[in-house]
Amino acid sequence: MNLLILAPICSILALAFAGYLAYKVLKEDEGTEQMKKIATAIRQGADAYLKRQYTGVALFFAVMFVILGILAGFGFLTPFVPFAFISGGFFSGLSGFIGMKIATRANVRTAHAAGKSLNSALKVAFSSGAVMGLTVVGLGLLDISIWYYLLDFFYRNLDEAMRIQNITSAMITFGMGASSMALFARVGGGIFTKAADVGADLVGKIEVGIPEDDPRNPAVIADNVGDNVGDVAGMGADLYESYVGSIVSTAALAVAAGLGVKGVTIPMTIASIGVVASIIGTFFVKSGEKTEQKGLLAALRRGVYVSSGIIAILSFFLVWNVLGWEHIGVYFAILSGLIAGNLIGFCTEYFTSDTYKPTKKLAQTTTTGAATVIIGGISLGMMSTFLPVIIVAMAIAASFYFAGGSGDYNMGLYGVGIAAVGMLSTLGITLATDAYGPVADNAGGIAEMTHQDPIVRERTDALDSLGNTTAATGKGFAIGSAALTALALIAAYRDQVEIIVKKENLDFVFNLSILNPQVLIGLFIGGMVPFVFAALTMDAVGKTAQLIVVEVRRQFKEILGLMDGSAEADYATCVDICTKAAQKEMIMPALLAIIIPITVGLLLGVNGVAGLLAGATVTGFVLAVMMANSGGAWDNAKKHIEAGNLGGKGSDCHKAAVVGDTVGDPFKDTSGPAINILIKLLSMVSIVFAAFILKFSIF
Amino acid sequence: MNLLILAPICSILALAFAGYLAYKVLKEDEGTEQMKKIATAIRQGADAYLKRQYTGVALFFAVMFVILGILAGFGFLTPFVPFAFISGGFFSGLSGFIGMKIATRANVRTAHAAGKSLNSALKVAFSSGAVMGLTVVGLGLLDISIWYYLLDFFYRNLDEAMRIQNITSAMITFGMGASSMALFARVGGGIFTKAADVGADLVGKIEVGIPEDDPRNPAVIADNVGDNVGDVAGMGADLYESYVGSIVSTAALAVAAGLGVKGVTIPMTIASIGVVASIIGTFFVKSGEKTEQKGLLAALRRGVYVSSGIIAILSFFLVWNVLGWEHIGVYFAILSGLIAGNLIGFCTEYFTSDTYKPTKKLAQTTTTGAATVIIGGISLGMMSTFLPVIIVAMAIAASFYFAGGSGDYNMGLYGVGIAAVGMLSTLGITLATDAYGPVADNAGGIAEMTHQDPIVRERTDALDSLGNTTAATGKGFAIGSAALTALALIAAYRDQVEIIVKKENLDFVFNLSILNPQVLIGLFIGGMVPFVFAALTMDAVGKTAQLIVVEVRRQFKEILGLMDGSAEADYATCVDICTKAAQKEMIMPALLAIIIPITVGLLLGVNGVAGLLAGATVTGFVLAVMMANSGGAWDNAKKHIEAGNLGGKGSDCHKAAVVGDTVGDPFKDTSGPAINILIKLLSMVSIVFAAFILKFSIF
Repeated sequence: MNLLILAPICSILALAFAGYLAYKVLKEDEGTEQMKKIATAIRQGADAYLKRQYTGVALFFAVMFVILGILAGFGFLTPFVPFAFISGGFFSGLSGFIGMKIATRANVRTAHAAGKSLNSALKVAFSSGAVMGLTVVGLGLLDISIWYYLLDFFYRNLDEAMRIQNITSAMITFGMGASSMALFARVGGGIFTKAADVGADLVGKIEVGIPEDDPRNPAVIADNVGDNVGDVAGMGADLYESYVGSIVSTAALAVAAGLGVKGVTIPMTIASIGVVASIIGTFFVKSGEKTEQKGLLAALRRGVYVSSGIIAILSFFLVWNVLGWEHIGVYFAILSGLIAGNLIGFCTEYFTSDTYKPTKKLAQTTTTGAATVIIGGISLGMMSTFLPVIIVAMAIAASFYFAGGSGDYNMGLYGVGIAAVGMLSTLGITLATDAYGPVADNAGGIAEMTHQDPIVRERTDALDSLGNTTAATGKGFAIGSAALTALALIAAYRDQVEIIVKKENLDFVFNLSILNPQVLIGLFIGGMVPFVFAALTMDAVGKTAQLIVVEVRRQFKEILGLMDGSAEADYATCVDICTKAAQKEMIMPALLAIIIPITVGLLLGVNGVAGLLAGATVTGFVLAVMMANSGGAWDNAKKHIEAGNLGGKGSDCHKAAVVGDTVGDPFKDTSGPAINILIKLLSMVSIVFAAFILKFSIF
Repeated sequence: MNLLILAPICSILALAFAGYLAYKVLKEDEGTEQMKKIATAIRQGADAYLKRQYTGVALFFAVMFVILGILAGFGFLTPFVPFAFISGGFFSGLSGFIGMKIATRANVRTAHAAGKSLNSALKVAFSSGAVMGLTVVGLGLLDISIWYYLLDFFYRNLDEAMRIQNITSAMITFGMGASSMALFARVGGGIFTKAADVGADLVGKIEVGIPEDDPRNPAVIADNVGDNVGDVAGMGADLYESYVGSIVSTAALAVAAGLGVKGVTIPMTIASIGVVASIIGTFFVKSGEKTEQKGLLAALRRGVYVSSGIIAILSFFLVWNVLGWEHIGVYFAILSGLIAGNLIGFCTEYFTSDTYKPTKKLAQTTTTGAATVIIGGISLGMMSTFLPVIIVAMAIAASFYFAGGSGDYNMGLYGVGIAAVGMLSTLGITLATDAYGPVADNAGGIAEMTHQDPIVRERTDALDSLGNTTAATGKGFAIGSAALTALALIAAYRDQVEIIVKKENLDFVFNLSILNPQVLIGLFIGGMVPFVFAALTMDAVGKTAQLIVVEVRRQFKEILGLMDGSAEADYATCVDICTKAAQKEMIMPALLAIIIPITVGLLLGVNGVAGLLAGATVTGFVLAVMMANSGGAWDNAKKHIEAGNLGGKGSDCHKAAVVGDTVGDPFKDTSGPAINILIKLLSMVSIVFAAFILKFSIF
């Protein structure tokens, strides 16, 4: 049996099951009229944002389509490339879109279900997360399958190696489309959500002194919209990109590793197994009625562990069957990835949860004011890079040597790629446990705004708080897989260049030594790119937040009766400001990812580009871990104080903690996650433009 | 004529002239009894600190001496190595010691001279800076000369290549000693000064509401001591390390480049020319009586430009004479370095001075509170890495291709090393313009504490403020030369390994490709090291500052009459707390620099070490630039507000700016500058332990 056929079958299965879950969610009751009204406002804001975003992004895709078309016309690319690019972007956007559609419907239903029982609320929120998780993997596998079968048919007359080579290069472009879309969604959504959040807090909590999620705050709807467009739609597009990126980058290494079509079969079939395992896993998620975290976490993790177990067992037989005993090491590479992802997740949790020492210590620094909180949080984040780097280093070493021994470099690099696929194989369910968080968060907001029974808020808070932990684990997977995938892509870049060199009979030999000045300069520039990228995105959040502050202040001043509740705030204007600003500000960071590798290529040649990619991957990984963990720890240090420690809400310690949390917002939800996408997009752009660079580079 | 003889001659000249300037400074009047009393307290605190520091460091050096001795006993090192190591540490420490001795005497004399005229004050402060500048270059050249002639005599029977090889490897150990000492001095001094500063401000300014430098603050003397032990003694040891590091690393590349003794002559003679040029330059520094910055800056820069001009002209003839037309490109490599150093200095100034847009914009972010100031400052720092990286990239490219053309890698790398030597050739005078800043700062503190005429404070403030600008330029040189020197050291590492491989007939070939997993893993670990190092040092500042806060609060509570001036604060306890804590906290970061390359070497082999060094150099450079510039911009944004903008002192904006400044303190004066030393020390340790690693590595 040709195992590849499992990919389209499982993708349909995933989408069908997602449809079934969505149907179940939508059947739930939406609650009172007031709840519906708030939910509608959030939904409309989110829809308006996405419409605007997709319009802007469509323009970018149109321009890129033309550029790629011209390059294809001149023979630098195959004619499929522009279409593959568009389809990647489309499906990535669609993943976010569907995830957000269901999330903006599940939020109010979760709030209502929380009135009944904790388990009902968990069911609704988790089902909504599962819809997104399964949509992401379903659409990912679907698009990969479509392109695989289409190109396989088209290139049917070529020999296997050439055929697979052509198929996988086109697939990389599809990955590039997905990454571009993901970057826009993460950066745009990240700017929106954090600007609204920071802006709402700065005036609402600090200046006017009203609580979080108070309906009198004109930015409150924008804040809730932000959770959906940033943490849901942005994350959906992001993980879609990670998922297909890991598969296509590994597939691209198949020919060089001498595996041919088998090398493509492995990652696609692991993904297919992962879909089934994730669906099975969802049935194991149910909770009792205690709101204590340990039990809830166990409920969610049960699903993930069941799925992981299934994958761990089945993929052994898969590798054995497809590659034989000779390459059974590939199986251990998969395991290395699965284990490394979990370990990084634990590290993230250790450094950012207030049940452990680092965040507790960080909370203590609030006693000497905001400055020491910031110093403490940054140094916590920096320190927290140690273990993830060691874990990734060990995962690289393990997957490389398991798959390739000490001699076969190409098999070794294939092993690194497959480790990333293994790490993300459980994405269907891990993303479900992650994406349910913002739904619970929104449900809490709706409960607060519509003055529900305190037990409702208590239940949604329990779920939300748990969401922080699962989000930490999710980040571990996203960030770890990004490092491994980026490495696989660098190897794919080298392979691509060598294919072109051979085909065009060029006089070029790689010199990737770190003492080659081109590589060295590339390393320096690559090391700088994530910093500049982070600067641009943080700056965008800062600027947009200031616009929101001005608008909220204006409304409190000009709308009479706003404070006593007799007049209603103009929510739409804040949503509009965030939307416009996010659209404008997401352009520069995205262009950076495209312009830099091309410019470096033209000036320093392909050796320089390889250096650039290595430098960006290394620094990007470390910086992303640091920003995610600093941000997470600040957030939880604040929550730790709000839980009644160190004087509780309103104390001086709390004020200092709020400063930390506000700084952490763009760290953890805008710049940090976007860097993961950036490092892969840089590689994909380099691969797609490789032929062009080889022709026109001054070196 | 053998030009090498210029080195000892010029080193004696530098030391003699430094002695003459010191004599002139000491002849100046110390002012009133009260001034003398304060100055004595500062001096005693500084002396006590240095005594303690040198005791602790001596222990470290003793242990290292034994370890190196054992390695030499087993034949892994030449017998000179342990002694060279000690001598490097000794002279590095001595540079800082002498600089601090004169600075703690010049401060009170500057304060007194400021009562007469601006030019008198400038003369005293600048002379004190020049004593340090010339001591650093004088001792550096002296130590290099001693070892050169000693080893040249000892190895006189070997052929030229072998002789130079043996000489330069021993010299690297001498550099390692200097770097170790510098790291202790920078980290220890940096922790002391910033903990005292932050601690004094947190209680004094914020809680009790007394101004900066108020004698009632128990931490005020510690703060002033800190300026001397951190910004003077630390900087002296640091730049001594940079200076000799650039020379010995370039010399180490001489044999591989095929230049033999000529390759050693060039850097040593450039340094000799630089000494003479710096001495001449000092005569051009004099000011009028206007306190406006532009004129003062021109006065200082005149000296630097004269020196640079002399070097630019003479080194042309030097290269022509020694290497001939064939290698005249080496001259342009020197120029590239000189120009790049200045350009990075300008960038630093642009991003951190409040006469330009970035810092003005940062000051604006204070209107929305502390959180936006922090976000703004971090993103400013990250953004500011762009140009320095491009400049360094261009300097690498230019010096490489000027010296080596497109084919001769070894000459090219020699060119990169010589660019660093060129960049630092004016150190005698640039360090003078830099080191005078803390003297002026201290003078202002003494004037404030002894209630001098406001005109005195105005003049010292003018000088101090100018010091910030020249410090920015100085940082440009330190940071740029660190990147280039580190690269030269990586090349020297490769050469060293190849020498050992050849000598021992080992079966080893380098594979420095970035796709070699050993290199790749090394890159990741190297990329993480500067982050962990920064975390450790910032954390140390935070912890120590909290100890100071507790002590200062205690004194305000327990010493009756402290606030109304009827009782005196117990200054010594604060000095003692800082001293003890700095000693304790500097151990871990220093050990990191030694343990990491050895561990990586044992586990990943020499390829892995090369990756480690490249990763650490790239990330370290970018992170150091970011931390320095964020810190500098926060400092000047605060000063901008204190100058009366945005509500001036005591306004909400000012409070927010103080938070930024406090966070920036460890950024710019502890972690940032120490990273420059770290990246070189890692390389030197790797070189010294290369034979050991080759023997015992599991690869």
